[in-house]
Amino acid sequence: MKISARNVLTGKIVDVKKGATTAHVQIDLGGSIITASITNEAVDALKLVSGMTASAVIKASDVMVAVE
Amino acid sequence: MKISARNVLTGKIVDVKKGATTAHVQIDLGGSIITASITNEAVDALKLVSGMTASAVIKASDVMVAVE
Amino acid sequence: MKISARNVLTGKIVDVKKGATTAHVQIDLGGSIITASITNEAVDALKLVSGMTASAVIKASDVMVAVE
Amino acid sequence: MKISARNVLTGKIVDVKKGATTAHVQIDLGGSIITASITNEAVDALKLVSGMTASAVIKASDVMVAVE
Amino acid sequence: MKISARNVLTGKIVDVKKGATTAHVQIDLGGSIITASITNEAVDALKLVSGMTASAVIKASDVMVAVE
Amino acid sequence: MKISARNVLTGKIVDVKKGATTAHVQIDLGGSIITASITNEAVDALKLVSGMTASAVIKASDVMVAVE
Repeated sequence: MKISARNVLTGKIVDVKKGATTAHVQIDLGGSIITASITNEAVDALKLVSGMTASAVIKASDVMVAVE
Repeated sequence: MKISARNVLTGKIVDVKKGATTAHVQIDLGGSIITASITNEAVDALKLVSGMTASAVIKASDVMVAVE
Repeated sequence: MKISARNVLTGKIVDVKKGATTAHVQIDLGGSIITASITNEAVDALKLVSGMTASAVIKASDVMVAVE
Repeated sequence: MKISARNVLTGKIVDVKKGATTAHVQIDLGGSIITASITNEAVDALKLVSGMTASAVIKASDVMVAVE
Repeated sequence: MKISARNVLTGKIVDVKKGATTAHVQIDLGGSIITASITNEAVDALKLVSGMTASAVIKASDVMVAVE
Repeated sequence: MKISARNVLTGKIVDVKKGATTAHVQIDLGGSIITASITNEAVDALKLVSGMTASAVIKASDVMVAVE
């Protein structure tokens, strides 16, 4: 599958924390950590566990820019 | 200002392309490029130009996870 | 690639309209039409044209519910 | 009320699962199921229960496109 | 129509600027101005013009919090 | 830090409710209440409590427009 989302950043999962319905998955991109808030169902469907190679996928319209 | 968004990835702006109302800003994160789709007004207000240090800011609920 | 986004609705592209930076793609899901607002770059990268089979992909946290 | 969101897909609610703060609502669109992640407060305010007719409402800028 | 989005802020439209595909609509909430980036099609469908009473509708998961 | 998000509405926090992973924060904007759904981690990092001055920050592409 190829997707229109312009941002695909690949790293290694370092934490998966399931809540009541919503899970937080942290991916180490080689120094910086990115946090994804996804459904518990997605964690189960993709069998996400620490140590797996995974990508953070982000639509360009969901990215803001900040400067000092 | 401190913001609740969990993901702040800092790099250097490598491209700013304004459209009729929407601009695309590309930030080099040290190898990978991230694209932000923001308003032309924001580009003007923050005086975004290529070469500036800038951060991509992303709310955790806007990050998806993909695996091969 | 498998993605955490829970909603993948497959149909046929019926319209692709590129703007200055942002494109609108319409997918016929078999009666109802869904509109996606994506970057021109994504349209080019995926070579999206009318008549192609394509899926609308939507993160669960971007879906609202309405009732009469 | 008329809303700018371009995508309104109507079906029947088949599941409502409340978590600690976030609920998942599934709507059967006549074959395909769409999942919405919304607040528990919204579930209560709209009195959402299985069997109700309801619509999934999605802003065009939150829809991605994928192809094989 | 009642919608699950928790935030509905009502004011008066003070600017509508259409681009090639994306429009910016500004609503005066009684002092502060809120900007919405929506499709040109939505502007046409809702006949949005300056002076109209209108509401900004925002899903709770799209709101961030910032402190000094 | 200056951010591209066009909408920054300042008020006072009137409620913070943490769930298993996701928290709801309510900000009184001087009459109207806005609800933000953010991570528990963000609540801790920003030390958000009732009575604090805080701003709701919203990207323009996440704002819809509704009319009667």
